[in-house]
Amino acid sequence: MGIQTSLSDIRIDSQGERLSFDASFIAVEVARLLREDQTSAIREFLETQELADIATLIEELDEGDDLTVLRLLDLHDQAEMLGYLRASSQVALATRIPRRELVALMGAMSHDERADLFKQLDEEAQEAILPALSKAEREDLRRLAAYEEWTVGSVMTSDYATLMPEMTSTQAIEALRAQAIEAETIYYAYIIDEGRKLVGVVSLRDLLTARPRQRVSEIMDREPIWMRADGEQEDAARLISRYDLLALPVLDNNDRLVGIVTADDAMDVAEEEVTEDFYKGSIVQPIELSVAEATIAMLYKARIFWLVLLVFGNIFSGAGIAYFEDTIAEHLSLLFFLPLLIASGGNAGTQSATLMVRALATGDVRPADFGKLLGREVLIALALGLTMSLAVSMIGVWRGGPDIAVVVALAMVSIVLMGALIGMCLPFIFAKFDRDPAAASGPLVTSIADVLGVLIYFTIAARVLEI
Amino acid sequence: MGIQTSLSDIRIDSQGERLSFDASFIAVEVARLLREDQTSAIREFLETQELADIATLIEELDEGDDLTVLRLLDLHDQAEMLGYLRASSQVALATRIPRRELVALMGAMSHDERADLFKQLDEEAQEAILPALSKAEREDLRRLAAYEEWTVGSVMTSDYATLMPEMTSTQAIEALRAQAIEAETIYYAYIIDEGRKLVGVVSLRDLLTARPRQRVSEIMDREPIWMRADGEQEDAARLISRYDLLALPVLDNNDRLVGIVTADDAMDVAEEEVTEDFYKGSIVQPIELSVAEATIAMLYKARIFWLVLLVFGNIFSGAGIAYFEDTIAEHLSLLFFLPLLIASGGNAGTQSATLMVRALATGDVRPADFGKLLGREVLIALALGLTMSLAVSMIGVWRGGPDIAVVVALAMVSIVLMGALIGMCLPFIFAKFDRDPAAASGPLVTSIADVLGVLIYFTIAARVLEI
Repeated sequence: MGIQTSLSDIRIDSQGERLSFDASFIAVEVARLLREDQTSAIREFLETQELADIATLIEELDEGDDLTVLRLLDLHDQAEMLGYLRASSQVALATRIPRRELVALMGAMSHDERADLFKQLDEEAQEAILPALSKAEREDLRRLAAYEEWTVGSVMTSDYATLMPEMTSTQAIEALRAQAIEAETIYYAYIIDEGRKLVGVVSLRDLLTARPRQRVSEIMDREPIWMRADGEQEDAARLISRYDLLALPVLDNNDRLVGIVTADDAMDVAEEEVTEDFYKGSIVQPIELSVAEATIAMLYKARIFWLVLLVFGNIFSGAGIAYFEDTIAEHLSLLFFLPLLIASGGNAGTQSATLMVRALATGDVRPADFGKLLGREVLIALALGLTMSLAVSMIGVWRGGPDIAVVVALAMVSIVLMGALIGMCLPFIFAKFDRDPAAASGPLVTSIADVLGVLIYFTIAARVLEI
Repeated sequence: MGIQTSLSDIRIDSQGERLSFDASFIAVEVARLLREDQTSAIREFLETQELADIATLIEELDEGDDLTVLRLLDLHDQAEMLGYLRASSQVALATRIPRRELVALMGAMSHDERADLFKQLDEEAQEAILPALSKAEREDLRRLAAYEEWTVGSVMTSDYATLMPEMTSTQAIEALRAQAIEAETIYYAYIIDEGRKLVGVVSLRDLLTARPRQRVSEIMDREPIWMRADGEQEDAARLISRYDLLALPVLDNNDRLVGIVTADDAMDVAEEEVTEDFYKGSIVQPIELSVAEATIAMLYKARIFWLVLLVFGNIFSGAGIAYFEDTIAEHLSLLFFLPLLIASGGNAGTQSATLMVRALATGDVRPADFGKLLGREVLIALALGLTMSLAVSMIGVWRGGPDIAVVVALAMVSIVLMGALIGMCLPFIFAKFDRDPAAASGPLVTSIADVLGVLIYFTIAARVLEI
């Protein structure tokens, strides 16, 4: 009873954070009950829980205990629960399940999750399982596992519901009823001809509201939205989001239906993409594991490349300063303004890059809009630069007299303008060369702006102060 | 015919980018057909198109033309299409629709979209519409429009399907058939008692596969996942994603069912949140419109605050340099290494912040893990710092002799360590004080690391070189 209350609390709170915390607490309780052989108490508890939560619980249990708890679920729930485990936990568990049991379990899994698990297993385990599967399962597994990681094919599933165009709506509903146990969803059904070519899509809702004798061919949408299996999975997620679909049919290059992508899988794809973009716009290289799981060596490797690269960028700034050593030695008060001017160029550039990267990603701005935006950016940067040079020139008068104030004011306008233009152009240049604009990250913009900022500042200083 | 081909191409390509480009092209075609009074050709074309695409087309049309094209759709499609328009376009269009027509249209809209539109209208328009609505519609509208923008209540809809527990599965399917025209979804149905308290949820799939005489009360899930109407909408999106739901029931504080959040609305919430987080971690303040639509003044305002704020941060760096003017005057070669050392501290800090912000957002790391991670971060930072000081000290020997090399090497290790620790701690400090860790952005970390970097570098230089 104590266990039940704590897990139901989660839903009221609905905090992902609370959840993982409680799961480890419940895992201790479950382990205790296992020691006391109170399996029926655990079974009762599991019945009231969501499979996603049970997956989190199983990940928290010790080796051995996890398998015992898994076996308290019926086969169908076991198969579905496996889909909620992290890939690494899934494989770790699967390798400890006896072969015959694993084959039965994989037979009950949804086809996409089964293929994902299969791909993760080592060759030996794969070879052991294949002969035990039916021919149809084997072929399905091979086909789904063959798609590359970034493709629509790799996230689609082949257990979709199909109908024939000449069925009446009553017959169609009956057919869906029969397919309900196997199919990933029966809310959309796909109408295919003899050659498995997709001819239409119909929703269960439309079937239910149709007249009983009406034929599927009269109700179905004859121009459904679809994608090729070798298309990009991000595009599938985008289509599902844009057209509010529950599932998207996937065709091979001969227009034959080979799978569907469901909305929940599309949501996972979209979330992965966000993390990917997050790292792409940063100066950390992507890491395979979560930060908590990664080793020190992995994190070192993910960071050292950019750090060293950016040091070399800054050597140019240093060389720039060294070049003007004489001017600096004569006017040491120039140094006071160095960090402030240099940083402003980088900051203005980071801002422009941020705005452009996001706008290009959401489609608010297209590469063709570059010219139109450039003029506006110049005006904005001038306004920003003038505001800041006003503020800074007053400090200039105070710290170094009117000459220095003029230098600092002129430098500020020029550097902000230069930084903003670099920050704006870089994402477009990346897009032009088919690279992700998100890679035009802040530190990259900053490094370029730093070098140019040093040169601009001291060039102006040398000219103004020597006259 | 020409129009049809170009719009169908979009689906094959499935590029959001292509779409908006073609929509403006098609808008020209449609405008031409309107001038030539070929409305039937347009109607034929519209019938083959998705409502989301028609919405994009209508946004591209001139005032007047858009209303004409809208009226070529039947009422139900008009209502659904409106939901795909951007909020600003929706209001602009709605204010030009005659009152009686608008009332009919709003009657056909889904309840959440109707309430969203109503909220956007000015008071005069609201007052004009309210009396024309039925009492039930009026109350529904007022109730839905009353929720604050960030709540679950503001994204939920009240047109859900309900069943009674004593119905047989056959009766239940019949009841859903009757509710199919009005309800947002019939794939999940909610079972409520006389007091409208939620007692269970059942899927249409489970109803279809149940025995015909089986009662809803036997089939339904008695412990469904739900949320309070005043909860945060991001949490609703998270629950829907975690448990792979098609819809989430929403209860008021008396446990009465007041609405549902559908998966497609949850996807929109998740996408908005990404954009929000993106700006939160940047030095641009959020802007209401897209970059392309925003005025120069709006963009200026969104940027000047952080730019000025960060300038003041850099004044401290400048003051730090000024404080060590004598040391610098004696050893001008120190200046060569200034940009490189300072930037490395900021870069290492930005990296740590990036990793921590993302890990805290995805839940991979919890605030309680701070202690455990701190020790690891020190080791990683030392490894990074040592690698870099090795490289840099060689340049030090070449540019300034062994003394300078020692100073630069020592400074590099200290500065990288300092930067990494600031970048790591800042997100946790923000989380501790209930602020979003994402606000611990790169430039904030960099500014702090810059000031300390200057002090560390020249303090070490002063000590080592004066001995």
